[in-house]
Amino acid sequence: MKNFSLSLLAILFTGILFGQNEPVDYVNPFIGTSNYGATNPGAIAPRGMASVSPFNVAGKPDLNPLEKDSQWLSNPYVYENKFLTGFSHVNLSGVGCPDLGVILTMPTTGELKTDHLEYGTTYSEEEAKAGYYSAKLDKYEVRAEVTASTRVGVSRYSFPAGKANILLNLGLGLTNEQGGMLKINSATEVEGFRMVGAFCYNSPEQAYPVYFVAKLSKPADNFGVWKTPYKYKGEESQWMGYNGKTRLKEGFKREVVGDSIGAYFSYDLKKASEVEVKIGVSYVSIENARENLEKETSEKNFEDIYEETKAAWNEKLKRIEVEGGTEGDKSIFYTALYHTQIHPNILNDVNGEYPEISTGETGKTKGTRYTVFSLWDTYRNYHQLMSLVYPEEQLQMINSMLEMYDENGWLPKWELNSTETFTMVGDPASVVIADTYLRGLTNFDVEKAYEAMKKSATQIIDNPLRPGLQEYLEKGYLSVDGGTAGPVSTTLEYNISDYAISRLAGELGKTGDNKKFYKRSLSYKKLYNPETGFLQPKNSDGDWYEPFDPLAGANFTKNVGYIEGNAWQYLFMVPHHIEGMIKLTGGPAQFEHKLDELFEKDQFDMANEPDIAYPYLYNYIEGSEWKAGERVTALIDEYYKNSPDGLPGNDDTGTMSAWLVYSMMGFYPITPAEPVYTFIPPQFSKVTIHLDKNIYRKDKLIIETHPDLEGTKIDEIRIDGKRHPGFFLNHKTFLNANSIYLELKK
Amino acid sequence: MKNFSLSLLAILFTGILFGQNEPVDYVNPFIGTSNYGATNPGAIAPRGMASVSPFNVAGKPDLNPLEKDSQWLSNPYVYENKFLTGFSHVNLSGVGCPDLGVILTMPTTGELKTDHLEYGTTYSEEEAKAGYYSAKLDKYEVRAEVTASTRVGVSRYSFPAGKANILLNLGLGLTNEQGGMLKINSATEVEGFRMVGAFCYNSPEQAYPVYFVAKLSKPADNFGVWKTPYKYKGEESQWMGYNGKTRLKEGFKREVVGDSIGAYFSYDLKKASEVEVKIGVSYVSIENARENLEKETSEKNFEDIYEETKAAWNEKLKRIEVEGGTEGDKSIFYTALYHTQIHPNILNDVNGEYPEISTGETGKTKGTRYTVFSLWDTYRNYHQLMSLVYPEEQLQMINSMLEMYDENGWLPKWELNSTETFTMVGDPASVVIADTYLRGLTNFDVEKAYEAMKKSATQIIDNPLRPGLQEYLEKGYLSVDGGTAGPVSTTLEYNISDYAISRLAGELGKTGDNKKFYKRSLSYKKLYNPETGFLQPKNSDGDWYEPFDPLAGANFTKNVGYIEGNAWQYLFMVPHHIEGMIKLTGGPAQFEHKLDELFEKDQFDMANEPDIAYPYLYNYIEGSEWKAGERVTALIDEYYKNSPDGLPGNDDTGTMSAWLVYSMMGFYPITPAEPVYTFIPPQFSKVTIHLDKNIYRKDKLIIETHPDLEGTKIDEIRIDGKRHPGFFLNHKTFLNANSIYLELKK
Repeated sequence: MKNFSLSLLAILFTGILFGQNEPVDYVNPFIGTSNYGATNPGAIAPRGMASVSPFNVAGKPDLNPLEKDSQWLSNPYVYENKFLTGFSHVNLSGVGCPDLGVILTMPTTGELKTDHLEYGTTYSEEEAKAGYYSAKLDKYEVRAEVTASTRVGVSRYSFPAGKANILLNLGLGLTNEQGGMLKINSATEVEGFRMVGAFCYNSPEQAYPVYFVAKLSKPADNFGVWKTPYKYKGEESQWMGYNGKTRLKEGFKREVVGDSIGAYFSYDLKKASEVEVKIGVSYVSIENARENLEKETSEKNFEDIYEETKAAWNEKLKRIEVEGGTEGDKSIFYTALYHTQIHPNILNDVNGEYPEISTGETGKTKGTRYTVFSLWDTYRNYHQLMSLVYPEEQLQMINSMLEMYDENGWLPKWELNSTETFTMVGDPASVVIADTYLRGLTNFDVEKAYEAMKKSATQIIDNPLRPGLQEYLEKGYLSVDGGTAGPVSTTLEYNISDYAISRLAGELGKTGDNKKFYKRSLSYKKLYNPETGFLQPKNSDGDWYEPFDPLAGANFTKNVGYIEGNAWQYLFMVPHHIEGMIKLTGGPAQFEHKLDELFEKDQFDMANEPDIAYPYLYNYIEGSEWKAGERVTALIDEYYKNSPDGLPGNDDTGTMSAWLVYSMMGFYPITPAEPVYTFIPPQFSKVTIHLDKNIYRKDKLIIETHPDLEGTKIDEIRIDGKRHPGFFLNHKTFLNANSIYLELKK
Repeated sequence: MKNFSLSLLAILFTGILFGQNEPVDYVNPFIGTSNYGATNPGAIAPRGMASVSPFNVAGKPDLNPLEKDSQWLSNPYVYENKFLTGFSHVNLSGVGCPDLGVILTMPTTGELKTDHLEYGTTYSEEEAKAGYYSAKLDKYEVRAEVTASTRVGVSRYSFPAGKANILLNLGLGLTNEQGGMLKINSATEVEGFRMVGAFCYNSPEQAYPVYFVAKLSKPADNFGVWKTPYKYKGEESQWMGYNGKTRLKEGFKREVVGDSIGAYFSYDLKKASEVEVKIGVSYVSIENARENLEKETSEKNFEDIYEETKAAWNEKLKRIEVEGGTEGDKSIFYTALYHTQIHPNILNDVNGEYPEISTGETGKTKGTRYTVFSLWDTYRNYHQLMSLVYPEEQLQMINSMLEMYDENGWLPKWELNSTETFTMVGDPASVVIADTYLRGLTNFDVEKAYEAMKKSATQIIDNPLRPGLQEYLEKGYLSVDGGTAGPVSTTLEYNISDYAISRLAGELGKTGDNKKFYKRSLSYKKLYNPETGFLQPKNSDGDWYEPFDPLAGANFTKNVGYIEGNAWQYLFMVPHHIEGMIKLTGGPAQFEHKLDELFEKDQFDMANEPDIAYPYLYNYIEGSEWKAGERVTALIDEYYKNSPDGLPGNDDTGTMSAWLVYSMMGFYPITPAEPVYTFIPPQFSKVTIHLDKNIYRKDKLIIETHPDLEGTKIDEIRIDGKRHPGFFLNHKTFLNANSIYLELKK
């Protein structure tokens, strides 16, 4: 305890000394909570399993225009909503489907109410910081503050004198799954679990429990559970006066199950009082949830935990230091970096246990088991950023993916809490693995990884990762009538993965595979229609699918060729072979013209992944490189703001944020599975990336703009004092540079 | 094991030597399974917590005319139904409301079906014995046999070669409660619990779990769970292709909760095979259910367990040996005795733990904790029989009642698995306690018991046992407008209880209370209307309630004065003061006339308790005593048969059976809380009751009819060779007699 207090003091002093200068202070968790950014302002530790988010998406359409059941809504909190019904303790951030958002607590006062429509309230005086959220609940004059350690959500409720209640509602949730169990153990403890799953309305048979133990800092004066059963409609209902009505089970200490159940702890407070609630969670068992709670938070109070979590965030964020730029720039930058540190998140309990993928059997990891791999999004830039700034985590993520392969024979596609949701298309895990290895993060079982990658690329029968593989191999493309979703998009995704395999094969000396998969990666050409200048859908007989409308499919409208996009957005989605695209389109001038047209016709979609690298494609056109920086700066200005609507759209588990982090630093990993960056003028005059000495040779990487020049275009890149030709730089050169100067011009 | 085998051999030999002569062989568990007897033919050990009953009351109204949801039905099995949907593992016998009847197993073959309407089947070749039931399931050619130890239901399924399935359905049940949890631990084990409660549609907030662990003798080739969720009706249902549909979760080994869930274990059987399923239950925890299973049945197979349970039954039943009488007489007699040994049943686990009443906190008993006290029924004759034949059990029952008083401050009224259901009226626990003590079973804390009895008789405010007590004390009766249910019936019940308190007070030397409560016990007179000759309802102003119809209220029709009966059935319900009733009615002749009229007008109800002692009232009329025996014999002949409809109605947890046991032995405990018996000609020429030497002075009691005379009337009773005057004999004289001869005459 003595040591602990000293280190806490040290943290506090640091905070005081540096004031608003610390990276953590720039985080604005409200960014992305509107405009469908799908983030939440709740409290979370870096990559935390638990988080505590205000929950304001249930009921009261007049106060909550974005009501969870009235539409496809994927976040527990929306900035414009106003009616709060509690705080959820497991949450997803920046995903496109509703799930989790359960284990809801709510402080109330006065008469006990168990229906969220009755006990919900408006709120005011909201405050959100990294690891902290607070609001005043208007109806009750209660201040609710929340923080979190990695696996424990922690709340502090400041009640006025009088009757106070703390509710734990297992009925309400963002997920569409139903059902839970709870059991009160004492006047200060309740345990249980809640079923979640069916992410994106898929695989309901995989629905699984999230376990919890909740502990209160003050023994309740009375407690109990409630259950609202379904209304029975049969003959016997005539004798069931209680039919469908909520039952209060005062003092009940045995298990209660149901779709609509909850626990309450009530107090008769003689004076205004604070009550803290800690909720440990686990995906393995109630016992593990209890151990998580005890190991992480016993002996600590709300303040201690918040300070520790804040310090952990600052440690994370200060890996990148930026100078120059406005305070607003720093806010959007550090908030974006913060958003990249939420998913993938930690799945294993403090004892190392986690549910294995598919079976749910209890596994034990030696390192960290990560979950929430939205790989269709994140293969494009996110993991590249992790390899650069948090390589130890990126390696653990690769190891987690390989554990999954050990467990169910396949790499993940869109993995969520050890269920494979099979959301989206393509085979993105291969790209991430190859990219990581090629960036020099080789400390994993690459032969096993290669075997796994090759399996999904070659196994024709019962291949969950690459449906339509046989047709793809036979024809080089997937046809509209072949039955595979989004045949153009999926063909391109397979090309990208094949390129990644080719590159890794080359690195591993597998010359045959290197050539074979490289050849496969270029089959996109078969879908290029020189008549229209688009990659467009084909029938299985080789004819173009008619009618072709390059606008069909935008904004999630139905289309036959593409996934979440139209022909414009998939126009150049062959990042590994832009030179080929340039040739196909007729040379750099035509390519540039088409790229201009994309933006001018407003067909560039900043809110989704397929085209997000496109502004950087100008760097391939000699003499027009300046357009890349201009486009990127314009996009940042338009879409990224220090306000709730400050993300262009769904954050896609940090992918949109990773784009911003890179773009503001002035470079971008333009080609997945190719360790290369392309440069634009940064938003900061100096960026210092602190490197992991265990993995990289140097301990930091500094990118500076020339101090004497102001400008919006890069005149030249100077590495260690020498001019570097062009706007591309490979990872190794980049990492080994003693100095990088970007000479800017107007 | 060696000792065990020897004792098993001994049992087997005994069986062989005695052949059909053993009491256990006379048990016909089908008796009472029709005519609303509410017994079931399932396997149960004496006073078992677990039992395994065929379940044929769900669905298919064409095959199951008595469908559980189409009416108020209180048993898991009805003889005339034909469609079986499994075997339930906790069951009530002879009660008037649906509850328990859950944890259903079902063997099927071929394709897995999880809807009981699809997998249910007709059956044939039914066989039921004490501790054993078997049937062939027509659809599957599977023989299902079941037996039980005290806390474990055991099944043996004989499957043909091919695909076989064992289902555990937690959705289906007799109870109106919903909800359960299950978790498969391995290919041979599943654990969980099922909510039950709301007996008689009361106190749904007390619904509680019954826990179980099920073990299979053979590892399943595959297994999983199913869940059928409720249909979601909101906006999102458009994306939920799975909405409301049953989900199979193959291989799922985490918790599943819901109102409609189950587990399956499937086999690919190369040849015809037997699979045994043991299900341990507990009302405390899953751990205790597992311990119960292991302690009672590990190392034992189906045959072992059945033989032990059969032996246990025989030990119980042979406490009374009968000679003479037909084989059919012996069947109805021993089946009745068997039915008295089902409830009250054991609630505590092998480790002594049980849920305490009301709170559900885990208590630990030193002896046996009994449950299912249907005291309104059983105070009249059942406990008297237990005191005589099974006094060690009766004492444990008294102790259980006193434990309840310790736990929640009140004696039980209608206790079921540690919930007080508050079913029926009156304060019957006092009668049972006084009666037991007065019969010489004094080895319990009688001062505590007396305190408890007096509390319910005197506490005006918040008295859950005696509603309306204030009015009763003020006026001597409950009025129609006073708000207490069945005011005439309830007044009489309170009189009876007050008499019991008076008698016990006398025995304990509490002279004041003895007088006070005796006086209270006679207040029934205020309800006697000499104009009509009935005990009839009064208004609070003292006027008779109008209109008065002595027929109103029969057969459960609505009435203002009586509970489950009419004025005829409550005509003489003052068993403690028949001499007073005789005076009120105008003397023995008028009394006899009225008694005759009751029978002649068909107003005697053999199927319910208030009037069941009435045929014995003829013994109060000098010269007409022979009518008692005549009436009783006629009633036995009419209502008690060796067939499914062989009970007059609901067995009322053995009360109707206790009536038969006494009546066939030729005596009856005519007055509750008065240790006296009255005699009629028995149905057997010799009855030997083996007495408990720890409690009674002698080791047996023999009642013989005079061997040389045949007759239907008792000429005289000879005790130890001397003529005993009259037809009443007090308990002490009876128990101390060396010989009792009933000289019969034609």
